[in-house]
Amino acid sequence: MPEVYIYALQGKTLDQKRKLVKEVTEAVARNLDVAEDTVLIQLMESSQEAKAKGGVLFSDRATAAKT
Amino acid sequence: MPEVYIYALQGKTLDQKRKLVKEVTEAVARNLDVAEDTVLIQLMESSQEAKAKGGVLFSDRATAAKT
Amino acid sequence: MPEVYIYALQGKTLDQKRKLVKEVTEAVARNLDVAEDTVLIQLMESSQEAKAKGGVLFSDRATAAKT
Amino acid sequence: MPEVYIYALQGKTLDQKRKLVKEVTEAVARNLDVAEDTVLIQLMESSQEAKAKGGVLFSDRATAAKT
Amino acid sequence: MPEVYIYALQGKTLDQKRKLVKEVTEAVARNLDVAEDTVLIQLMESSQEAKAKGGVLFSDRATAAKT
Amino acid sequence: MPEVYIYALQGKTLDQKRKLVKEVTEAVARNLDVAEDTVLIQLMESSQEAKAKGGVLFSDRATAAKT
Repeated sequence: MPEVYIYALQGKTLDQKRKLVKEVTEAVARNLDVAEDTVLIQLMESSQEAKAKGGVLFSDRATAAKT
Repeated sequence: MPEVYIYALQGKTLDQKRKLVKEVTEAVARNLDVAEDTVLIQLMESSQEAKAKGGVLFSDRATAAKT
Repeated sequence: MPEVYIYALQGKTLDQKRKLVKEVTEAVARNLDVAEDTVLIQLMESSQEAKAKGGVLFSDRATAAKT
Repeated sequence: MPEVYIYALQGKTLDQKRKLVKEVTEAVARNLDVAEDTVLIQLMESSQEAKAKGGVLFSDRATAAKT
Repeated sequence: MPEVYIYALQGKTLDQKRKLVKEVTEAVARNLDVAEDTVLIQLMESSQEAKAKGGVLFSDRATAAKT
Repeated sequence: MPEVYIYALQGKTLDQKRKLVKEVTEAVARNLDVAEDTVLIQLMESSQEAKAKGGVLFSDRATAAKT
């Protein structure tokens, strides 16, 4: 408590994830005035075929951007 | 913004997903009076072994239905 | 099953919500090939002070837009 | 309706999942006074590399615990 | 860890909530083999006007049931 | 995209929320290598009577701590 869910596209390295959870934990603990050890973070990673913006899958947006 | 999370069982084709996100985006934009490009959709696909109804996993419901 | 969670800012009329859930249900049922009655929709309405884009609360974005 | 989302680390057996969804369904139906068949449960399983506590990934917490 | 989110309609008494979180915590701890004190439960209560099944808001389903 | 959901107990000031969303946005943008303006944050604030740890509502935990 508190719990943080971060929805993002797949493809981050383990080190990126390490730094991400560390820095988000620090920001949350600092501003919600709780101990860092109580902060839980869940990364919700998605493929480009399971996520869409403006009615278009990110996989199709990526293909369109290349052509 | 707005963000839409759709929890469903795995197994849809890419074309089904394409049509789904397009039509849901249109419905959300039309009724919430926002531009389609601001609508974000995340498909949360689940295996039958990770979802249950009435206390029974969908994988077991499927097996029971065949016998 | 399936379940749809729509996160949006507060302020929609009951009629907007009626039309929204009807049309999203139709789009989901049509494209996921399930009966409409199995589709569950939850509106997650937020105040402008509990939602942010680009690091700025929507309440502050609205104020900035007026000045 | 109601819907229950359980976020936990991967690695449970199918039997553990069976018992988990059965018992959680019973507890929810009993206390919310609804029929068991209306209770939907989604298991949201995570790898240790996608979950963190106190700013440290569970995969790194496990490694640290072994040394 | 683990975290449990229970989406249900508003209107439960404090005692119902007390028993609900106690029994769900016990079921989760027992079956996921974790200490009860690590189990976190969040009740996500909704008004009937923010939840729909089969394309109809629960508030309208209730009205229709009375006529 | 990405979207961040922060579940925490109610009671933070508007300034705390301002700083929280700013700093979390910066941490997410920096580590996921995306523009800050694409980062969306939703604060999911809960009353103490809707959240529990170890099977006990936070409202009851607070009462017990005072006696």
